[in-house]
Amino acid sequence: MKILEKHKCFDGMLTVCQHQSDVLKCPMKFSVFMPPRLMNRGLNSKIPFITFLSGLTCTHENFTTKSGAYSFAAQNGLAIVAPDTSPRGEDVADADTYDLGQGASFYINATQEPWAMHYQMESYITNELNDLVCNHYSLMKNNQGICGHSMGGHGALTLGLKYPDRYRSISAFAPIVAPTQVEWGQKIFNAYLGDGRDKWLEHDACELMMKSRDRSSYQPILIHQGSADEYLEDHLKPYLFVNACEKVGQKIKFHMCHGYDHGYYFVQSYIKHHVEHHAQIMYGNMLR
Amino acid sequence: MKILEKHKCFDGMLTVCQHQSDVLKCPMKFSVFMPPRLMNRGLNSKIPFITFLSGLTCTHENFTTKSGAYSFAAQNGLAIVAPDTSPRGEDVADADTYDLGQGASFYINATQEPWAMHYQMESYITNELNDLVCNHYSLMKNNQGICGHSMGGHGALTLGLKYPDRYRSISAFAPIVAPTQVEWGQKIFNAYLGDGRDKWLEHDACELMMKSRDRSSYQPILIHQGSADEYLEDHLKPYLFVNACEKVGQKIKFHMCHGYDHGYYFVQSYIKHHVEHHAQIMYGNMLR
Repeated sequence: MKILEKHKCFDGMLTVCQHQSDVLKCPMKFSVFMPPRLMNRGLNSKIPFITFLSGLTCTHENFTTKSGAYSFAAQNGLAIVAPDTSPRGEDVADADTYDLGQGASFYINATQEPWAMHYQMESYITNELNDLVCNHYSLMKNNQGICGHSMGGHGALTLGLKYPDRYRSISAFAPIVAPTQVEWGQKIFNAYLGDGRDKWLEHDACELMMKSRDRSSYQPILIHQGSADEYLEDHLKPYLFVNACEKVGQKIKFHMCHGYDHGYYFVQSYIKHHVEHHAQIMYGNMLR
Repeated sequence: MKILEKHKCFDGMLTVCQHQSDVLKCPMKFSVFMPPRLMNRGLNSKIPFITFLSGLTCTHENFTTKSGAYSFAAQNGLAIVAPDTSPRGEDVADADTYDLGQGASFYINATQEPWAMHYQMESYITNELNDLVCNHYSLMKNNQGICGHSMGGHGALTLGLKYPDRYRSISAFAPIVAPTQVEWGQKIFNAYLGDGRDKWLEHDACELMMKSRDRSSYQPILIHQGSADEYLEDHLKPYLFVNACEKVGQKIKFHMCHGYDHGYYFVQSYIKHHVEHHAQIMYGNMLR
């Protein structure tokens, strides 16, 4: 693992790293923000963290430079890992469109060629990168959460639901909640998973939620959505997820934010609430 | 004036605009953040604002996307205008180096060709753009401040000192304070102003300060500087400015920030203090 950049930020430390991924078979970049040590904890204590999954066309950089999250992460004693959104490189399959190929992994493991060779982002995020950051930084593997934006919101909800023992807290900005019902998801799932619709359903947040048993004992899921989001009606449809949550007793804090669009000015406006949501759950876990 | 982007942000509104500059003879972009209306002021009331001048290689975009300023601008009822750092375009003279030509105007009016034709940034910032934003937005022309980073810190200090009736408050991040004494400034001034050193001194913050009469009645100037800034010793030399301020009774709040470098992670870590510095002075002015 190579450190490409290191910047002090809000008395914490932001590093941008590169490593060779065995799972994705290519070099990958990611950033890690470590908050300043809180005075009331020992020097060797580990820190709870979240992984932030970004949206279509993004790299690790968009969240890292534009979210304004680190002020609140520093205040709340939370580390943040921001991975890239797909495998990268000239050898990695790609398409001439922003919503397929590089920058558009949808955080699943592809089974169809030419994608299957490199597009194994579910395994990368939940295992390889998770192990790497927990080993290299003082992060609590058993006290972490997941958050994301748009395609990354889909990633956060689906990985959060598939791996409840790993991710103790979940939140999302303007997530794609029902990819099997919208063009963005259908196009991707057809390419990466083939045309067997049953396979698609395993990666659809609404389907995963509705198939859950009673989830009334789980922590609430936090979602912010802009009302002026240009993708709201065609690709996002967040009410489908609110309904799915209600069916299985999952508590959800859903906020429709008047006049906000889909971009990072929206994300930065509400990131404070997400950092606090995860920190409250994780520091609550530590008191139990 | 054309609006290129418009985003709700912290309940205020961020617009990115383009206009044809008569002074610079080229199209120019800039951003304006308008804070949400404060409840205790009338709908027609104008809002105090600051102009933020960016550093070498930047456009209007760096500050706009990376500074994290708008959260605090919204809280403090302050508008922020972020201009580009030089004239732009294929017809505009340029050089094959980051510290001369496009992205490196030093916010002065060039007198030497090929630069003089377009590089009139002092007039652009203080007159043309100032008039434009005050006319198009509800901004208080008589209650504004100036702030900047690196080359833009030089711009903020020098324009603030040259136009005390215009800029009521001044602050800077890691400013170039003595351009006539360092390579960055000498190279630029020689190209833009010719080799007459007397002309250079009119654009050197330390010289301007030392030539001032008693400045003990002026508002304090706020400066933050990172101690791990790679340009600190060779190009910035902030202590020269602290000394110059002391000679003429100018109050200065100079903060050396341990471990911080020259980039936007440093700026975002301290932008809150700068927004509050300007807002306190400007809202103080309104109570007089």
